[in-house]
Parts: sequence; structure tokens; C-alpha cells
Amino acid sequence: MPEYRQDPMTGRMVIIAEERAERPHQFDIENTPYKDVCPFCEGNESLTPPETAAFRNANSKPNTPGWSVRVVPNKYPAVVSGNVPPCLLDQSFLQSGGKADGIGLHEVIIDTPRHVLSISGLTHTEVADMLGMYRLRLQTLRSDSRWAFVQIFKNVGASAGASLPHSHSQLIALPFLPPTAILKSSADCLWCERLASEIRCGERIVEETAHFVVLCPFVSRFAGEIEIYPKQHEADFDRSDTSRLGELAELLHRTITRLEKAVFWMKDPLAYNIVLKTKPFGMEREFHWHFSILPSLARAAGFEWGTGLHINPISPERAAQRLREA
Amino acid sequence: MPEYRQDPMTGRMVIIAEERAERPHQFDIENTPYKDVCPFCEGNESLTPPETAAFRNANSKPNTPGWSVRVVPNKYPAVVSGNVPPCLLDQSFLQSGGKADGIGLHEVIIDTPRHVLSISGLTHTEVADMLGMYRLRLQTLRSDSRWAFVQIFKNVGASAGASLPHSHSQLIALPFLPPTAILKSSADCLWCERLASEIRCGERIVEETAHFVVLCPFVSRFAGEIEIYPKQHEADFDRSDTSRLGELAELLHRTITRLEKAVFWMKDPLAYNIVLKTKPFGMEREFHWHFSILPSLARAAGFEWGTGLHINPISPERAAQRLREA
Repeated sequence: MPEYRQDPMTGRMVIIAEERAERPHQFDIENTPYKDVCPFCEGNESLTPPETAAFRNANSKPNTPGWSVRVVPNKYPAVVSGNVPPCLLDQSFLQSGGKADGIGLHEVIIDTPRHVLSISGLTHTEVADMLGMYRLRLQTLRSDSRWAFVQIFKNVGASAGASLPHSHSQLIALPFLPPTAILKSSADCLWCERLASEIRCGERIVEETAHFVVLCPFVSRFAGEIEIYPKQHEADFDRSDTSRLGELAELLHRTITRLEKAVFWMKDPLAYNIVLKTKPFGMEREFHWHFSILPSLARAAGFEWGTGLHINPISPERAAQRLREA
Repeated sequence: MPEYRQDPMTGRMVIIAEERAERPHQFDIENTPYKDVCPFCEGNESLTPPETAAFRNANSKPNTPGWSVRVVPNKYPAVVSGNVPPCLLDQSFLQSGGKADGIGLHEVIIDTPRHVLSISGLTHTEVADMLGMYRLRLQTLRSDSRWAFVQIFKNVGASAGASLPHSHSQLIALPFLPPTAILKSSADCLWCERLASEIRCGERIVEETAHFVVLCPFVSRFAGEIEIYPKQHEADFDRSDTSRLGELAELLHRTITRLEKAVFWMKDPLAYNIVLKTKPFGMEREFHWHFSILPSLARAAGFEWGTGLHINPISPERAAQRLREA
């Protein structure tokens, strides 16, 4: 059983999940055709646990070919299904520390049946389907009162923490608000104010479309850190305007392509993390959903681990310029 | 000029330091003898800025051979010398956010004149000299009222963030307390209580000597995370009992050797970060100095960047056992 542990002195919180150590790492496989071993490729459905959800052809059966996006339980989960301990449900764990059973949900969202490695290799329709599945899972989990917080994220490339190369996303639902989700409260949306001023200023803007804006945040921790926001106020990603999903998919695809061209990278040309920030279920304060994109340079060393401050050698102003030109 | 930037909404803080992007990375040098290019080797003193401090033979001159530990300004600094802006001195910057000049001090402590790659390759005397220099620099900087916080740390190996292989430490002095240094206040030393209970329990203890204890912390973020504490209460590393420096040096050397043998590593066998946690200058609350050792597996991916929670696939209990046996 995985375990949540929290240190009331520092606020530090971890999940101890020994099952994760058993994960196979397929980046090192060299001489085996990926079709024989990749659990995310079409035709290999039996290599994953049975699917939780999928977008599939009307006459196809679950766990067979004929799907465009497929959601399965993570075979090596960080958190597992079960009864949520009261100290997590009432958030008292975050004050008192100690340990609690690692109850939660950990799923894999397989973005495409094709063995593609990055969002830049997906079609616009595939990206839109992936985003559509993010919405659907959030909508479904919202109705389960156990979950206070759902993190959807994506690790692409071995140096960004992925263990399998086939393009996939992950979803972890937690029964409490993680420490970073607890922000200063405000009646107005602080992001709306900030976006308006960023658009006026322009120097950190990578691209603006009819309904979205791509920018490098003023307080960028990493070289080439990027955020994508809807320009109009929307708190919840799963309640956002669906008519704009195609525009968002094209923009996300183009942004990742820019990032891959901008040569911020050192060695791994296709490595980044994407984090979807959306309003935690039941949180009262305002929020403005957005995607945070962190290049594989998103590393921390001694100073960062010691102080929490990040040293960023490329200003967001310069990064935005490079990305605009890419 | 580097820049501090802070986001009052999230508390996130960064240093934008474009000079750092120019750093040479010597891990990729293959066919040049290191003696010709390594700025930290004895005889190459002219390749660094003039030294700030050194332990050297009585009749040797500064910036020539004849030293055992040498401190030089970092040639590619994250922060630079100058007048500290008032908003940093009075800590108001941390509430109001925005940006401020990146004033601070960034030094390199060259641990040894020999081209050694890890603490495990140093002699016990060399480790003791290195620790002695940490003490001396802290004592000197304590008398400069500009600095509220000094972080001494060490990045060993390219995958732990080092750009030069020759064993060295770094020191960054800041005119404010970084967000992670602000802990819950307490009249008693919470670490003393915790150490006593860890020693009673024993399952996370790696080794105990007459005056020190090595353990894997209960809330370990990373596989093989280690801390070294003095058993008796001491707040400030530079005011610790000097008669125990030899014992500490041997223990640190042995602990790194254990870590290198314990095969927590994936690919880079000699990569870790060491962070010295000592009481910030002028902070009122209790503190208990210690070293935090983070193996190169100390990486974060999408979930960690999104939530601040770390998923650790090896429990500290199991890690301590592996380290004891190594």
C-alpha cells in the first residue's frame, strides 16, 4: 500500500510508492520492434489493465482495436483505490503530519493508437481528442466526492521522467489539496488582470490567437517555460467552451513544435513536462485554468533543493523572442 | 545584472541570471587532457578569478600552487556584488513580489588541488579541510550585515547539475530568507526530539557514531535521500565543536561511498547534491544544522512540478537498510 507522509515542520509531503520501482523502462530497448512490446500501441490492448474509458468506433469492443484515445489504470500506481482515511478527507493531515494510506486514483491516458513520441507528432484531431478526454475524465471524477484535486500531466522523453516513449498522459486524483494548490485568496481573478497586462506589454508573449494566449511567465523557473491561457475568464478546464477545443489543440501542437525548434535543449531533443492547472474541485477562490509547459531543462540542483529558488539562465523575455522566431 | 523575481500569488521565486548560460560544460570534453583546461587543478590558478580565501602553505603566494582548499568568485555568477535594494534587506520583497537587482555573493570552493570527481575520492584530511573552509566562510560572511542567508551546496556529476567535474562546492549568500527557510516557529528544537525518536526506532538509521547520526528522513522525497546530524543540539555549523570535524569528515566520506555502492543509480554512477542546512543569520527560532544528501535520482516530473508532492519509489526504511549493507 502506498503511503502519504507529511512533515508538519517543513510542510514537505511525499508519496512512498514502492510498486513504482518495478516500472519497466522502455527507452533502453534497442533491438526489439516496439510493436511487440509497447503496451500503448493498437493491437496490444491486452498488455494494459482493462480500460476505464475510451473514444472508440461505434462497433468496436472495449480492450480491442478501434479507439482513438484510451484510459487505463496505471499498472505501477503511485496511489491506489480504497477507502479514504478521514484525516485526508477533512484535510487535517496537512496540519498534523505523519502518515496515511496512499488512497487515490492513477490512470494513464493513451493519446493515440499510433507509436508517436511527442505532441508535435500527433495530428490536430488527435490533440483535440486527447484534450477532450482530459475534459471527460475531469467531468466524471468531479461527481465522485472522494476527490479534492485532479492532476493531469504529461512526461515526454526519458530525461523528463517518462518510462515509456509512446505518447501518453497521466491523471492522479487526490483526496486532499496539495500544498502548492493553496494560494492566496482573492475575490477577483488575479490571472485575468495579469493576462491583460502581459498582452499590453507583449515582451513575454509567444503567440496570441482569437481565444488563447501563449506566454513565458514573468517568474519563469526554467529556460523556455511556457504557459497557455484562455483569454476570457474560465476557472475549470472541463467546463471550458468546447467550440474552442480545436483552436486550443492546434495552438498546443504549434507551441510544442516551436519549443522543439527553439533549441533550448541540451541533449534530449524531445523531452518536456506538461501540467494542466485547473480549479481544484470545491475550492472557493478564483482560478483561471492553464497549461504549464516545462522543457526537460526543468531540473533542480543543490541550490534549488536547498532554497526553493530557481536559477534561470534564459530570461522569459529572451525565451519568448526565441519561441516567436522558431 | 541578474534579477530576483517573485510571484506574490504563488510565492514562487527565481533568479534570472543570463550570465549563467555562458558556462562551459567540461563533461563533454573527451580528447583534451583535463590538466590543460580544468580551472580547478593546481597550476591553473590563472584560469579563475583571484582567490577570496585559501588554506595554503605558509610561504606560498595567493593564486599560485601550494593550497589545499581555494575559494574564488564564481566566474558565471547567479548573483553579483553591489548595494542591496531596501526591499530585499527588509524582506518586504517577499510579500509584494515584482523584481529586484540580483545582489548577492556567489563563490566556488575548490575542495582539493587534485582532479578528483567525488567526495569518495578525497582523503579524510581533504574532506575535513573542505568542511573547515565551509566554517570559515560562514564565520566571515556572518560579520557582513548584508547577508541574511548563506547556502553552501555541492553538485557532483553532470546529471546532478555540475558543469565541471573537478570536485568543488558552491556558496551563495542572499540578503533575504528564501521561502523554504521560513519554518514553523518553536521554542524547543524539533530536530532534537525527532533525532531521539529516530535513534530509538532505528529503522531509518544508516549509521551512528559518537557524535553524529546518518539517517534516511521519514518524509524522503527521493530514493536514497540521506541526512547527517550532530546528535547534540547545535544550531550553527560554523559554531559547531571543531574537535569533531575529523569524525564528521570520515563519516561524510563513508556515507558517500555507501551511496555510490548502494546502486540506487540509474546511469550516472557519481552524481549527487549535498546541501548544508544551517541556521540563517539572525533568525530567531531554533535550528539544528545538518547535511542533506540527494542522489542524482532527485528529479521532478509533471506530477511533482504540478503538485509539489514527490513520488518516491524506495521507502526510506528500505533505503536505510540498503545503505547499511553497502
